[in-house]
Amino acid sequence: MSGRDDERIARVALGRLFEPGDRKMFDFVKTMGAVRFRDALLGQGQLDGLKDNIAERLNGLDAEAELDRSERRGIRFVIPGDDEWPVWLDQLDECEPGMESSGAPLGLWVKGPLRLNELRRSVAVVGSRSSTLYGVDVAGEISATLASNGNCVVSGAAYGIDQGAHRGALAVEGQTVAVLACGLDRVYPAAHQNMIRWIGEHGAVVSELALGCSPMRHRFLSRNRIIAGLSMGTVVVEAAIRSGALSTANWTTRLSRPLMGVPGPVTSETSAGVHQLIRTGAATLVTRGEDVLELIGISGDHLLLEPRAPEQPRDRLSQREAQVLDAVPAAQEVGPESIARVAGLSVKTVEETLRILLDLGFVSTGRDGWRLTELARC
Amino acid sequence: MSGRDDERIARVALGRLFEPGDRKMFDFVKTMGAVRFRDALLGQGQLDGLKDNIAERLNGLDAEAELDRSERRGIRFVIPGDDEWPVWLDQLDECEPGMESSGAPLGLWVKGPLRLNELRRSVAVVGSRSSTLYGVDVAGEISATLASNGNCVVSGAAYGIDQGAHRGALAVEGQTVAVLACGLDRVYPAAHQNMIRWIGEHGAVVSELALGCSPMRHRFLSRNRIIAGLSMGTVVVEAAIRSGALSTANWTTRLSRPLMGVPGPVTSETSAGVHQLIRTGAATLVTRGEDVLELIGISGDHLLLEPRAPEQPRDRLSQREAQVLDAVPAAQEVGPESIARVAGLSVKTVEETLRILLDLGFVSTGRDGWRLTELARC
Repeated sequence: MSGRDDERIARVALGRLFEPGDRKMFDFVKTMGAVRFRDALLGQGQLDGLKDNIAERLNGLDAEAELDRSERRGIRFVIPGDDEWPVWLDQLDECEPGMESSGAPLGLWVKGPLRLNELRRSVAVVGSRSSTLYGVDVAGEISATLASNGNCVVSGAAYGIDQGAHRGALAVEGQTVAVLACGLDRVYPAAHQNMIRWIGEHGAVVSELALGCSPMRHRFLSRNRIIAGLSMGTVVVEAAIRSGALSTANWTTRLSRPLMGVPGPVTSETSAGVHQLIRTGAATLVTRGEDVLELIGISGDHLLLEPRAPEQPRDRLSQREAQVLDAVPAAQEVGPESIARVAGLSVKTVEETLRILLDLGFVSTGRDGWRLTELARC
Repeated sequence: MSGRDDERIARVALGRLFEPGDRKMFDFVKTMGAVRFRDALLGQGQLDGLKDNIAERLNGLDAEAELDRSERRGIRFVIPGDDEWPVWLDQLDECEPGMESSGAPLGLWVKGPLRLNELRRSVAVVGSRSSTLYGVDVAGEISATLASNGNCVVSGAAYGIDQGAHRGALAVEGQTVAVLACGLDRVYPAAHQNMIRWIGEHGAVVSELALGCSPMRHRFLSRNRIIAGLSMGTVVVEAAIRSGALSTANWTTRLSRPLMGVPGPVTSETSAGVHQLIRTGAATLVTRGEDVLELIGISGDHLLLEPRAPEQPRDRLSQREAQVLDAVPAAQEVGPESIARVAGLSVKTVEETLRILLDLGFVSTGRDGWRLTELARC
């Protein structure tokens, strides 16, 4: 991590003044840079289109103290230009803005041994909080395959699919990153405290929100762009119509990165959103980790080997044998002349063929002639 | 039905000589016509590339007697040119040939009150014999919706999905057609005798195979082109990799008609073939009958009405209220000055806002100051 440069301090301060991905803030930072924008706010107290208490608020902030507090908790603030900055996240700047947020974050608060710039092979695995056991199992399976192949699994630490995704990666001692919608001192959901702590010790826990910020709906939506932006592609496992996970899907599409969906029973509402993504062509259907690896182009070694169905004995008959067999009745025995008439073949041909069919077990012969066996009728 | 014309008799005879969709037969009939082809076989006994016992076999046949026998069983032989001929079946003639068969059938043996030419609004619903209860239920649901909307459900009377499809249509007293891979006197599978008889009494049972012909694997595959050809589109409900139902899917694609697939759990092998069709873009994902109706263009009145997710109370907070709330600790009470410092706001602003948050139930106030309530932490 770089030192306490003014750029970092300006970005911490701006992060306190604006909600994640605030459109106007994003535009000013883009055109003026964070330091000049911060200084302009301090000097003028007001810029076109911004609320009038900005200067007052900015004066009350102590960004350096904030960095101190975070460092004491083992949390670093990574900003563009740092070695650790994941440069592919900057692609968010070129995206069409979302409803709730736009652009790359001012910086990311990070806790954990994983370095973000080393996560090029990362895949987001996300989905519904109100998931089914099926969905959680499949999320875990896919994530375990990805993590076993050296890919980092990115998710949101939420109940349901997110949890399955993180646990699948952790189960194979693979890499995983949790992106939170609150400050890294706030555990959400509380029940995932141990999992989030574990990820913070073995992977990385990430947020664009400063310490103390609480999770709110629009912050979940902004957070989702970070999940999409950090990852080479996104797998949606279960998502109801209008599920928040679909916002991660939308960001993935805006980023022109592979969007993948895992289908489920059509009777399950938690799969309805995924089915819609697949149906409209927004997402490609995937059923397992190998499909995902293939689609994100990390490996071409995962092509399907397709098993063949077994042949039935009767499928090996020649056309003439089949023809004679068709003329043999199932319910009664008949002579070869009758069979020849129905088959449109000579009696000699029929008699020769019947002997072959007898050897093969398709016909039996009795006092009154020939009839089909059970084998021929199945 | 037309009378006992020579065209019909020739087609019955040719049907006995060649397997369904035989490529050479198809080419000769296409260029010479059925009658001239039959006569050429009788005269020469042999045509280029055909087996040498053709004349012998042709002489042994009595096509008129075959028509008599069928008529006594209430079975008619419908051929191109008949009023009842479903002309859209002729499109098979323009298709790339399949592995097992090609072209429209010589004719169709039909039993039942439904007239094939009146089935323009027909949809094939097909799938695996080794289906799951889930698949059979979904096939039944979709078919019931289709049949309730006046569409005829076409399927193959097999175990599993086919049975679900027919029963779904019958349950709403809708139209259904069963296309068999054997003569109409042979019931396959035997356990479906009652269902097939019922369809023959209320819908139609159809085959291109004459009486007595037994079901064989290649005949199932040829039969599938009839199912696809009779229908405006095909829905595959469950199909393992390499399932026979996928041949119906292939024919539907060759016919440039809508191919649809119903997803299922990725843990279910019987959905793997469908998932592959959707994944490769061959099939569109559908989850219910309304989706099917939309895709086959029979009605545009089935667009989805999408429900919205409920809002959380906290999502209604203004940006300033959210800002103050973020600065209020959960674990201890603090004074407004401390909150103002963290939030970067004036003490006056913070005090005003805290009173609003108190009214809304997000914060509580005690001896030492302010703290978050449970509501604010969820």
